[in-house]
Formats: sequence, C-alpha cells, structure tokens
Amino acid sequence: MSSLRKVSDSTVRRLSLYLRILRQIRARGETTISSEQLADEGGLTSAQVRKDLSFFGNFGVRGRGYDVVALEQAVQSILGLDRVWPAVVVGAGRLGSALTAYPDFARQGFRILALFDTDPAKHGRRFGDAEVLPLSELESFARRERVSIGIVATPAAAAQDVANQLIGAGILGILNFAPARIEVPPHVSLRQVNLAVELEGLSFAIVGAGQRANGGTR
Amino acid sequence: MSSLRKVSDSTVRRLSLYLRILRQIRARGETTISSEQLADEGGLTSAQVRKDLSFFGNFGVRGRGYDVVALEQAVQSILGLDRVWPAVVVGAGRLGSALTAYPDFARQGFRILALFDTDPAKHGRRFGDAEVLPLSELESFARRERVSIGIVATPAAAAQDVANQLIGAGILGILNFAPARIEVPPHVSLRQVNLAVELEGLSFAIVGAGQRANGGTR
Repeated sequence: MSSLRKVSDSTVRRLSLYLRILRQIRARGETTISSEQLADEGGLTSAQVRKDLSFFGNFGVRGRGYDVVALEQAVQSILGLDRVWPAVVVGAGRLGSALTAYPDFARQGFRILALFDTDPAKHGRRFGDAEVLPLSELESFARRERVSIGIVATPAAAAQDVANQLIGAGILGILNFAPARIEVPPHVSLRQVNLAVELEGLSFAIVGAGQRANGGTR
Repeated sequence: MSSLRKVSDSTVRRLSLYLRILRQIRARGETTISSEQLADEGGLTSAQVRKDLSFFGNFGVRGRGYDVVALEQAVQSILGLDRVWPAVVVGAGRLGSALTAYPDFARQGFRILALFDTDPAKHGRRFGDAEVLPLSELESFARRERVSIGIVATPAAAAQDVANQLIGAGILGILNFAPARIEVPPHVSLRQVNLAVELEGLSFAIVGAGQRANGGTR
C-alpha cells in the first residue's frame, strides 16, 4: 500500500486554512463566524465547511454561526497543535538548515532539538537552539529525547536508511523532503513533500490566465 | 478578494499526483491505465479521477482505460510543464539557496536564472548556473530576461516590496515562501507556501493514529 494514502491531504489542508482564518478573525475582534463567511474567506463552498466541521463535532451556535475561540481551539486540537512536538532534522544542508530556521514551525509547537549530518565539517554548528550532531548519534538521541517527528532533508539515496533509524528509535511521524519514496510501517505516519508541486500550481494558473486573456474557452 | 482563492489547490495537486503516477506506470512499461487503477495508486475514488480528467478533455480508450502516454502529455500540458519557465529567486538566504538547488524544479522546466539579495557579501556567489545579484538589479534583469516566475524567499517585511518590483517587471506568477500575505493584481498568479501546513498534516495523522491505537472512536 502506498504510504501517500495515509493522511487525507485535502481535509488537513482545509483544517490548516480554517485555523489561519479563525486567527485572523479573532485578531479583528469578531467572536462568531458563519459557515458562509468561513467558506468565503477560504474560497470554499459553505456545504464543504459544514461537512468538515460536523465530522469533528458540533461547534455551531444556533442562528449565530460558530464561536470563533471554541472552533479555533477545536481545530488546533484536531491538528495536534495543542502540545509540543520534539523533532529532529536529518541532513544539515541548505534545505535542512532552512527548515530548522523556519519561524512557523516553532510557533505551531514543533521544536527542533538537533540536526544530524554525516559531514564532520558541519558538526557543532548551531541553528537557533539546535546543534548539528553526527548521524551516528541519531538513533540514541531520538530514543533518549523521546523525539516524535523526524524531518528528512538528506539526498535521495540516504532517505530510507535514515527513516529506518528514526523508526528504530520509536519516532511517530516522518516529514520527507528528500526526492525519494520511503517505506514506513503502519504505525508511523509519513508525509512526502515535493516543492515542485507548488510551482506546478503556479504554472497551471499562469497558463489558465493566459488562455482566459486570449479569449479561449474555460 | 483573497489571493489564496485564485488557484483551485486540490485539483492542481491531484493533477500533479496523476502526472507522477503516470510516469511510474510508463516506466513499468504499461501502456493503458483504468480510472480505477489511477484512483487506487493515488488514494482517490475512481469517480473523482473520471471527473477530473473529463473536465480537461476525453482521454479514454473505450473498454481499455486511458492511454498512458497521451494522458501524461495532456496532464503535463494542462499543468504548463510542456515549456521552459524562466524564473528568479529573491532572497539568497538558506531557503532561497535551497530552493535554487532543488532538483525537481529544473526537471519540470523551471529554470532559475539568478538570485537577488540586498546583502553585498552574497553578491557573486553561484548556486548551480545562477548567480546572486544586487536586489537593485531585479527589475531590469527580470524585464530584460523576460522572467515569468518570481520565487520570493525574503523576510516577511520585504515580501510586498519585492513582489511589486517583480510585477513592475512584467512577471506572470509569484511563489511566495515569505511568511507574509502579499497582494497582486488580477493578471498575476500567486501561490503562498506555508511549510508548517505540511507538519500540521503530520501531527494530525499522529494524533489520529494514537487515538486508533488506544481504541478511540474513528
């Protein structure tokens, strides 16, 4: 079975979107929001919004929509953002170090404790609070510090071996930026990130906009 | 109007997924694929697959499914991947330089011509074929080289100003990694990337897996 299937991607993306909208709404001082408003801000249908939220419980306030604070807390809890997630980054190259410094990770409770790399020249470098350690220490470190999330930013050839070490250390989830499919056992959650997909969304939009500008159909 | 709405995200993500599946299928030497098979490989319903593909044209071969090569070329063309996209990266920090080196960008036709940064210490550094140039040269460079895509990897405070320069130079699309919303005119396509959303998908999956393991409901 493909590991891609394990997380329903579009639902989670919508939940992340709801969370960001709710935070903005709360910052504007509003206390309730209708499904129509939430749909409008997120570019979705209100039927989709109601379906998503009813699946996770009943947050509606009769005739007035949803309570913003209660819904925000509920979505946060559903997404697992009501706790701290100890994490490590494997691969201290450009992408690994950029991810370590990514401000929204810490803000959402993902705490990167250390980076790991095979290159001795990188050992001892610090990115914020996190130090680069030898890859040989990954498994013992992850076990000792009860790391729950491993972020893999290695070259493709190393990704599965690194994943195996993380799994051996009892990790619960892997975010894989390496351009290689990795296999994980059923109890480990996996997300494969391909940044090229973001660029494809952009080229798709540009081509569509060009066709509309030229009077093409749809 | 929120700029997030401009591209139907989930459809494009499915198209990117179909493209990757079709390439794997072709690499295995198969020449046709049914909507059920495509759905199964992608973790989708076959109704969804048929709906997506019928929207873009008729690729079915009666009783045998879809022709793999024809469908791959069609999806590639829909996504705008049948051409070269001249691009620039603004912000030559860790993320900007990591994005420049990202192997799948070049593979999909996104050619990064140069990076731009305000820091004189970075000017003249090379990442692959791309050199870091002063930010003051961005607008004239982008116009002269007919750059169509700008990738923004600056701090939040600089993002809108950089976007304005790109738009002034006639760019068609912006991929924004800066943690700030930017505004673009209607003829410019925009995608906002938040890597924290990927981690949220993972924490969601871990929490769900934990609840299932503990015998919780759904």
